[in-house]
Amino acid sequence: MELIDGNRIAAAIVAELKAEVAAVTGRKPCLALVRVGEDPASVSYVKKKEQTAAEIGIEGRLILPPVTITQAELLAEVDRLNADENVDGILVQSPLPAGLDEREIFGRIDPTKDVDGLHPLNLGKVAQDDDSGFAACTPSGVMELLARSGVDLRGRHVVVLGRSLLVGKPVALLALQKKAGANATVTICHSGTANLAALTRQADVLIAAIGRAEFVTADMVKPGAVVIDVGVSRVPDATRKSGYRLSGDVHFASVAPIAAKITPVPGGVGPMTVSMLMRNTVLAHRRRLASPPGSSRKSAP
Amino acid sequence: MELIDGNRIAAAIVAELKAEVAAVTGRKPCLALVRVGEDPASVSYVKKKEQTAAEIGIEGRLILPPVTITQAELLAEVDRLNADENVDGILVQSPLPAGLDEREIFGRIDPTKDVDGLHPLNLGKVAQDDDSGFAACTPSGVMELLARSGVDLRGRHVVVLGRSLLVGKPVALLALQKKAGANATVTICHSGTANLAALTRQADVLIAAIGRAEFVTADMVKPGAVVIDVGVSRVPDATRKSGYRLSGDVHFASVAPIAAKITPVPGGVGPMTVSMLMRNTVLAHRRRLASPPGSSRKSAP
Repeated sequence: MELIDGNRIAAAIVAELKAEVAAVTGRKPCLALVRVGEDPASVSYVKKKEQTAAEIGIEGRLILPPVTITQAELLAEVDRLNADENVDGILVQSPLPAGLDEREIFGRIDPTKDVDGLHPLNLGKVAQDDDSGFAACTPSGVMELLARSGVDLRGRHVVVLGRSLLVGKPVALLALQKKAGANATVTICHSGTANLAALTRQADVLIAAIGRAEFVTADMVKPGAVVIDVGVSRVPDATRKSGYRLSGDVHFASVAPIAAKITPVPGGVGPMTVSMLMRNTVLAHRRRLASPPGSSRKSAP
Repeated sequence: MELIDGNRIAAAIVAELKAEVAAVTGRKPCLALVRVGEDPASVSYVKKKEQTAAEIGIEGRLILPPVTITQAELLAEVDRLNADENVDGILVQSPLPAGLDEREIFGRIDPTKDVDGLHPLNLGKVAQDDDSGFAACTPSGVMELLARSGVDLRGRHVVVLGRSLLVGKPVALLALQKKAGANATVTICHSGTANLAALTRQADVLIAAIGRAEFVTADMVKPGAVVIDVGVSRVPDATRKSGYRLSGDVHFASVAPIAAKITPVPGGVGPMTVSMLMRNTVLAHRRRLASPPGSSRKSAP
């Protein structure tokens, strides 16, 4: 069994981006980070993104509206960032406080600045094998982990457990693309799937993104499979000072011994998400400089 | 074995739409049909669409640019139709002559008028379970055939053979949606799939859209499966006056006896495509009247 080290791979990507940004003469890439309220998890995620941006040389512009902001005010903030030609990427940290409509907010972000890849236009482009948009960060992080671990999906059967908009469906679409490294046969299973284990056992590559701690046990995995664990849950653990430990969707202790390669939690897919956000931001900057406003750049409709 | 009669089901939908349009006071729905050049198949398809529109009471506006039209001129034509508030739906008949960039043309159509459902924004909405756009006509025709034949996909394993942008991927995404009638477990196979028959034999519902005449033989189908045949090919046949017959992707003679339900070719999926185009046009008209220009209608970005 080989452990896929997400921290090491993410660090390599960050180093590559740092070198790329260092070579930029003129305005550096700029990522607007919008965090509404003080949700502790969001505070920690946005801080990590800010730090990684700084490490690469990306300008992080922190925007911290109060939890009382209205939908209209937040839309207006997005409009301002859309119009600001010095902003390359816009990230609105999820989840938004209750009362705000995430779908409308995410759909308002200019697709050419949607470095989180959540706009339906960008998801549609992924489905159409069109590289002119942005793929969502966690799914492209999974693809990058596989590519950099020497796993070519061509002709292999990828089983995705979970059909979420953030992970399950986009990663299935990426694995299906007619592209080097992809070209997989793909099955998407979910909570309503009959005979789930019979399907997951067929996976050459199993991507677990169902959000249930330690759901995938050894009997659900074909010996020799590659196992990618996207889930992160807190599991009560009296032996820890915090009273909990982080666990993935995979029961690591039983599955790891039979897997060919497997990602740990933490330290697997998690670190990749931030590095993919940075890669999208650098890409957005490059595209923006290549087609400045007023040029004949064909932006999204 | 039960034959799924696409002609009968499509006729029922046309009758429903006719009744709906008859009740419209004021401006009737309007569908712009753009056909470039005189490709015989395109002439016949557009004629069928025009006739069905007329039958329903939809105004069909035929636009017939010469085969020599340039990309820029065709884009300008699309822009004119986008701006025309009396046009509800725009269909640009595929395939376009060589030299014209279909993707750019389709992507230029206002997503709120994209009744063919080919714009990446509309495909992205399908992937996000968002009903505010338009699903592509052939995939939604497949879903409608299943629904009206009493096939509920919940908990069933749908295997889609083919990953085309027009059929395979969108139909897989529709079958996956969290919606009454859908909620399937979905596998997408294609020309690069290993052990194809082993996968197709697991299908409770097999959707063949690979574009190879009579490719699916009885040994690839589980007895009792529902078989939907999206393919249409011309197969040489000396016994016919025309010298050919139409064939689907399924070897009907051997598969029909073991299937629970099956669509014939022709007369299965084919007639549904036109009726779904009409349904989308009537829907676009209803939405346009509900949110006239200048109102706060949130159109696509």
